[in-house]
Amino acid sequence: MDQHELRELGQRLRVDSVRAAGAAGSGHPTSSMSAADLMAVLLAEHLRCDFEAPSNPCNDHLIFSKGHASPLLYALYAAAGAISDEELLTFRAAGSRLEGHPTPRLPWVDVATGSLGQGLPIGVGVALTGKRLDHGPYRVYVLCGDSEMAEGSMWEAAEHAGYEGLDNLTAVIDVNRLGQRGPTRHGWDLGAYARRFGAFGWHTIEIDGHDVGAIDAAYREAAATEGRPTAIIARTEKGHGVAAVADREGKHGKPLPDTEEAIAELGGRRALTVETRHPVAEPCGRPLERGTVRLPRYGIGEEVATRNAYGEALTALGHARGDVVALDGEVSDSTRSGFFAKEHPDRFFEFYIAEQQLIAAAVGMQVRGWTPFASTFAAFMTRAYDFVRMAAVSRADINLVGSHAGVAIGEDGPSQMGLEDLAAFRAVHGSTVLHPCDANQTARLVAAMADAEGIRYLRTCRGASPVIYGPDEEFPIGGSKVLRASPGDEITLVAAGVTVHEALEAAERLGPAGITARVIDLYSVKPVDAATLRDAADVTGRLVVVEDHWPEGGLADAVRGAFDDGRPLPRIRHLAVRKMPGSATPEEQLTAAGIGSDAIVAAALDIMDLAAIS
Amino acid sequence: MDQHELRELGQRLRVDSVRAAGAAGSGHPTSSMSAADLMAVLLAEHLRCDFEAPSNPCNDHLIFSKGHASPLLYALYAAAGAISDEELLTFRAAGSRLEGHPTPRLPWVDVATGSLGQGLPIGVGVALTGKRLDHGPYRVYVLCGDSEMAEGSMWEAAEHAGYEGLDNLTAVIDVNRLGQRGPTRHGWDLGAYARRFGAFGWHTIEIDGHDVGAIDAAYREAAATEGRPTAIIARTEKGHGVAAVADREGKHGKPLPDTEEAIAELGGRRALTVETRHPVAEPCGRPLERGTVRLPRYGIGEEVATRNAYGEALTALGHARGDVVALDGEVSDSTRSGFFAKEHPDRFFEFYIAEQQLIAAAVGMQVRGWTPFASTFAAFMTRAYDFVRMAAVSRADINLVGSHAGVAIGEDGPSQMGLEDLAAFRAVHGSTVLHPCDANQTARLVAAMADAEGIRYLRTCRGASPVIYGPDEEFPIGGSKVLRASPGDEITLVAAGVTVHEALEAAERLGPAGITARVIDLYSVKPVDAATLRDAADVTGRLVVVEDHWPEGGLADAVRGAFDDGRPLPRIRHLAVRKMPGSATPEEQLTAAGIGSDAIVAAALDIMDLAAIS
Repeated sequence: MDQHELRELGQRLRVDSVRAAGAAGSGHPTSSMSAADLMAVLLAEHLRCDFEAPSNPCNDHLIFSKGHASPLLYALYAAAGAISDEELLTFRAAGSRLEGHPTPRLPWVDVATGSLGQGLPIGVGVALTGKRLDHGPYRVYVLCGDSEMAEGSMWEAAEHAGYEGLDNLTAVIDVNRLGQRGPTRHGWDLGAYARRFGAFGWHTIEIDGHDVGAIDAAYREAAATEGRPTAIIARTEKGHGVAAVADREGKHGKPLPDTEEAIAELGGRRALTVETRHPVAEPCGRPLERGTVRLPRYGIGEEVATRNAYGEALTALGHARGDVVALDGEVSDSTRSGFFAKEHPDRFFEFYIAEQQLIAAAVGMQVRGWTPFASTFAAFMTRAYDFVRMAAVSRADINLVGSHAGVAIGEDGPSQMGLEDLAAFRAVHGSTVLHPCDANQTARLVAAMADAEGIRYLRTCRGASPVIYGPDEEFPIGGSKVLRASPGDEITLVAAGVTVHEALEAAERLGPAGITARVIDLYSVKPVDAATLRDAADVTGRLVVVEDHWPEGGLADAVRGAFDDGRPLPRIRHLAVRKMPGSATPEEQLTAAGIGSDAIVAAALDIMDLAAIS
Repeated sequence: MDQHELRELGQRLRVDSVRAAGAAGSGHPTSSMSAADLMAVLLAEHLRCDFEAPSNPCNDHLIFSKGHASPLLYALYAAAGAISDEELLTFRAAGSRLEGHPTPRLPWVDVATGSLGQGLPIGVGVALTGKRLDHGPYRVYVLCGDSEMAEGSMWEAAEHAGYEGLDNLTAVIDVNRLGQRGPTRHGWDLGAYARRFGAFGWHTIEIDGHDVGAIDAAYREAAATEGRPTAIIARTEKGHGVAAVADREGKHGKPLPDTEEAIAELGGRRALTVETRHPVAEPCGRPLERGTVRLPRYGIGEEVATRNAYGEALTALGHARGDVVALDGEVSDSTRSGFFAKEHPDRFFEFYIAEQQLIAAAVGMQVRGWTPFASTFAAFMTRAYDFVRMAAVSRADINLVGSHAGVAIGEDGPSQMGLEDLAAFRAVHGSTVLHPCDANQTARLVAAMADAEGIRYLRTCRGASPVIYGPDEEFPIGGSKVLRASPGDEITLVAAGVTVHEALEAAERLGPAGITARVIDLYSVKPVDAATLRDAADVTGRLVVVEDHWPEGGLADAVRGAFDDGRPLPRIRHLAVRKMPGSATPEEQLTAAGIGSDAIVAAALDIMDLAAIS
């Protein structure tokens, strides 16, 4: 297109943004109008994307990190003929794919955005996949807001992209000077952004974001820049093109005061459409063949930490499946993802201590169909909780592994103890939450989770524990294991992870006291094996649930939720971590928290007494 | 001290670090040894701190952002005579205050660290308090690891400190080149750090971190630098002083191979002690007087959003109490903390879109006794979950307010909906979780939470809802309100926030169907009013719990947990958000999620039927 046409395309995108928000009665047209010229030039001249084949592995990727500019994104799709004008006007209506913020319900949207500061880190993940996994020709473009540059995650992304030299990545910073509630920190000081990106190793270009010639030249310069990602830092005007809103405060996140007048001021609707360039067809993508998985096998009675079994199983999975990749946050020697790194260095990714970028990269890799396993301490998964939440909105398929669960880690103290991870991951839409207690079980679950859907979380332990299952035992997701049972059981002990071993010991000790206890290993915390729990409740009437976790949101809440079929719930005693731990040995910690075998025995006796007197 | 003595003091700190870790059999002596000279010079020559009066408001603050270097911190305390040598050797033992990572169980420790990347943002909060609230003479020193510079939160802190011109803040970056599992990203490239800090507006000084003269000069230069924070970027050697570990990989987080040999190599134990400078006594600190709080009063039947009531109540609280401060993450027009900003601009703090720094600053402000209220969307509180988790380890007293809860926000879609916040905040040790349904209730809870302990979380809603309580009604934390009750009630509807109004409507509609329903407004989600729930269960036998939240970890889990007294639980039907929402109006969202009045009526009828046929 010539410059006149590019300007016309920019106006079309503005008009359609205004129309969509007007039809919806809400939305962010002014945040769309600032970036319209930036995106018009990209769409018409640079983006290589076959909109009719959204799964073409060679398509370029366009991520709106400023997801609230969704009217602009949808206007782009309309201009490219990917969606109809009718659909454009369904923006934000019930049932429409055109949600308030983009989600992958639209086939051209890689990931959901709308929580600011996430699009760029995920874009880094996609670009890294292009460089190091797909070896693909595609480029990744990320439209960023100036406001979201305050998010630390953007600088984790800047650091990682700069370090990895991702010259297939272009960030477009729409510096429109105005945030939600007023001016941004740096206003139109483009240099403030350029200095920061530059310090992190990026090539930077400062332009007038409404000068289509300058924009076009910037994209060319970005594509020609080798060994470094490029940030195009563009001075723009929020609400550009309509005087009633242009560069004015108080105009964020609402339709224009007069949609028809605004359309007229913008020169009316345009019929101008875009035929985007199609990608060069090159071999690109992940290996699809799968060999037989030869999981590690542990002998019953061996002492093995579940984190070790994770590392060994993941390594084995990596041998059978070329699509499996591992990511870690500078603790691979502790999580044991280092085992994988040693045997599959080309598929191991180090993110240093940047958990948000770690999870974002996993999301980026699954965009291209890879199967990521991202690991850090369970405690530090909380650092990326918003990224996990948004990954669920993205319908992402990722495996997350948190090690060093609970007080059982011992002397390091509470800062390193994952004690809220079960609660956090259970409360993620569509998640799977697994907490194995032995090495063979861990290995099986690692293989199973790789084929599950959505957010899969595996919780592993630091210390060694005895192998109690044979290597051929099966552990379906959603299942449990009844470790001891007889028809006359009077009480059921429900445990997972380290507390399974404590429960088994407690059951042993209850026997001589004349109490026969059933023991359930509830390794699948979500989905939970309601049938087995209900059966145990029917038989024994009383449950003791014991977990190495805060009392809220973990195992006990999962157990109680299994009785949501309208029947009365059983009597439940709940042992969990209720005091802030300090430093102590693992054994002392379990005792101090009241989740060791002594406490289980006491709780069992107590609940039996209560039953006797009621 | 002269340079010889300073070097000797550094050696003493190394020896004591080695001894402490040796006695414990674990810990991070090598990470302590790298920074020993940096801290020796600080303690002896610059830190103004009366260790005998840790609550002296004029004391300087020293925060170990690299909390794993706790042996060094404790060695400093021993050298200053604050702890005995006997106590030093209790490091990491059960019951000892000298935990694996520092916590405020020690009176000189402001905040718990150990989750990397948090000490600097919290230090920014303390320094900001010094500048803008206390107007105090104190300086804030933060010892940072080089590895943790990968955390985005460190750059949120760098950005905020640079922007605010915090020249009372000095960050000391201990560039020892080695992380946990191997070399850091930038190794000994001091310039990499200097360029980044410089770009963010800091003064930077690059030094040899084992040259006590250079260290001393750097602290002087930092103190003399006006209008900018200073980063002292020091090249150091991990394990410096002991050849067996110095600058070697694989020596992280473990005692030295031979403690006695190492002590000998370091020149043996020293008797050298430090008399630190005491702070200049200056007026400093927060206003302690309290006036009468004149909370806003709303008339029954008015339509008011609880977020509005929050803003108005906080403003009123601010008039009565000079210690109350408000912080927001660039959404004060939405959370309504902007109301406070307008009337109390000197006590309002804008953090732009940087939720980690937002919460960290709140933690920093409460270190100095201020009462912070930090607000953003409930959904975006997840961004700072690790900071909240650690704030609990810090025994911090902070108020957090999440607006725009649940699907009821409407068209903006799932990225903006807080649907996991109750689960996340319930699973924080010692937390208080409140979710009001009307404006008078909100106002009362705002006043109440300001005096509660620990992490207090208030969940507010976007849309207006009818005022159902009079302005003189009381709402104790841990309470609930029975909105409808009669002795013959057959079923109980339990709700909070927006679902209270749906439950009331459902109860109205059940009446003509011949079913009398009790309605409980469970505004205090944690602690929960177990007595009222048990009483309702005893009377009605059946509960329908309805919440605008994912099914896990929220209201229903709190309700079920109230029956942990060993009695059998009642029949429960649970209505919650079970499908990923899209865009739609608030009313459409409640219906689609199955948490509106229609769904409640249907669930009530269903559970009554079940009861009838059982």
